[in-house]
Amino acid sequence: MPKYTEISEAIIELIKKDNLQQGDKLPSLNQLTKDFNVSKTTIVKSLEILQKNGVIFQVHGSGIFVRRNQKKGMIDLQTNLGFTSDLENENLNAKNIEFSVINPPRAVANELGISIYDEVFHVKRLRSMNDLVFCIEESYFKKTMVPYLNEEITSGSIFEYLKTAYNLETGFSDKYLSVSKLSNEEAQLLSLNENDPCQVTKELFYSTNGEPFDYSINTYNYQNAQFFLQITNN
Amino acid sequence: MPKYTEISEAIIELIKKDNLQQGDKLPSLNQLTKDFNVSKTTIVKSLEILQKNGVIFQVHGSGIFVRRNQKKGMIDLQTNLGFTSDLENENLNAKNIEFSVINPPRAVANELGISIYDEVFHVKRLRSMNDLVFCIEESYFKKTMVPYLNEEITSGSIFEYLKTAYNLETGFSDKYLSVSKLSNEEAQLLSLNENDPCQVTKELFYSTNGEPFDYSINTYNYQNAQFFLQITNN
Repeated sequence: MPKYTEISEAIIELIKKDNLQQGDKLPSLNQLTKDFNVSKTTIVKSLEILQKNGVIFQVHGSGIFVRRNQKKGMIDLQTNLGFTSDLENENLNAKNIEFSVINPPRAVANELGISIYDEVFHVKRLRSMNDLVFCIEESYFKKTMVPYLNEEITSGSIFEYLKTAYNLETGFSDKYLSVSKLSNEEAQLLSLNENDPCQVTKELFYSTNGEPFDYSINTYNYQNAQFFLQITNN
Repeated sequence: MPKYTEISEAIIELIKKDNLQQGDKLPSLNQLTKDFNVSKTTIVKSLEILQKNGVIFQVHGSGIFVRRNQKKGMIDLQTNLGFTSDLENENLNAKNIEFSVINPPRAVANELGISIYDEVFHVKRLRSMNDLVFCIEESYFKKTMVPYLNEEITSGSIFEYLKTAYNLETGFSDKYLSVSKLSNEEAQLLSLNENDPCQVTKELFYSTNGEPFDYSINTYNYQNAQFFLQITNN
């Protein structure tokens, strides 16, 4: 782990430990440099990361301040590392309802940049948090990049498996959000009524080399899923 | 405008002019340094900004590549500079349906960090794009920070006015998304039916000094509004 990442995490710990709230002031840049006994460049880089991630804000000539804390149980739209990373403090579960190797539908093939004659793993899971189902997650993994999966793996964190087994990590992703009405089948899975509203996200995940490997369509229970996003201007 | 911002914009122009597509390779770091006749540090900073904004991705030892282009007419969830900045190529309109000075409801006062006896501008507008109403936007501006508004101003870009008149700009914002059902009144404004689904966003806008000045609740027509987000990991 690079030094600046270590420092970023140490500052997050400091905020938690001292229970600092929105608007509370952190030590100055010079003080942090002394406290952590590292170069100014390292501290500046750590603060940039914290600023980008919505943890702090910096006011020129005035200081470094704590931003509003992440809301517990809300889904961070800026994370593409899977719910396991996102909702780490919640009791998270994945239940397989479909696992097969198929030829992708045309729309999925187009997204993944493959032919409809290529093969993908088709994984459909019910995701629950603290025993409440909040999401139907339907994923298509390109088989050339994800050669093996089984139902034991998909009942846990697929992304953690891909990292361990294939050193395959998400470099970036494109996420699309829309709102729709539940079909009868979706409504049954989410314990809601047909035509109830739902948040739908479609996300294309790329490896660090820029190659798409996973296309996922999530359909959320509107009563059990809320989202947030922290935006920082340059 | 700093040099690296200029270069970032020039690279975006280059991508447009040459109609570069997802996965197309850009000139190397060294070549860009020569082409733009600036320091390597400046180019590195420009590329960092472009990467953060989802324009390019960099593969270590391999090069700089173009990312998928922004989808026309979709709303960028990562922008908090208003639709006027976001949907700049669309025919965008704002129609006032409410303009008053009020004492804020308690929930709004809490968000803005003021008392329910303080005053706010209450502005409710119908936003349309290419003559289709896509959003009901209800905003509360803290009067201590936004001393003056009128209906002429609110029929245009309020954010552009705040910048010009008060040098007030958004430094960062917190955005919350959820899905709900339309009330009868909302349905009429959006030409939909009562209980139809809707995307709701609640956003708290802070000045560059970290002081909240605007709390806005947007209710979107689910047929006319789609959203996207480009995520880059560190």
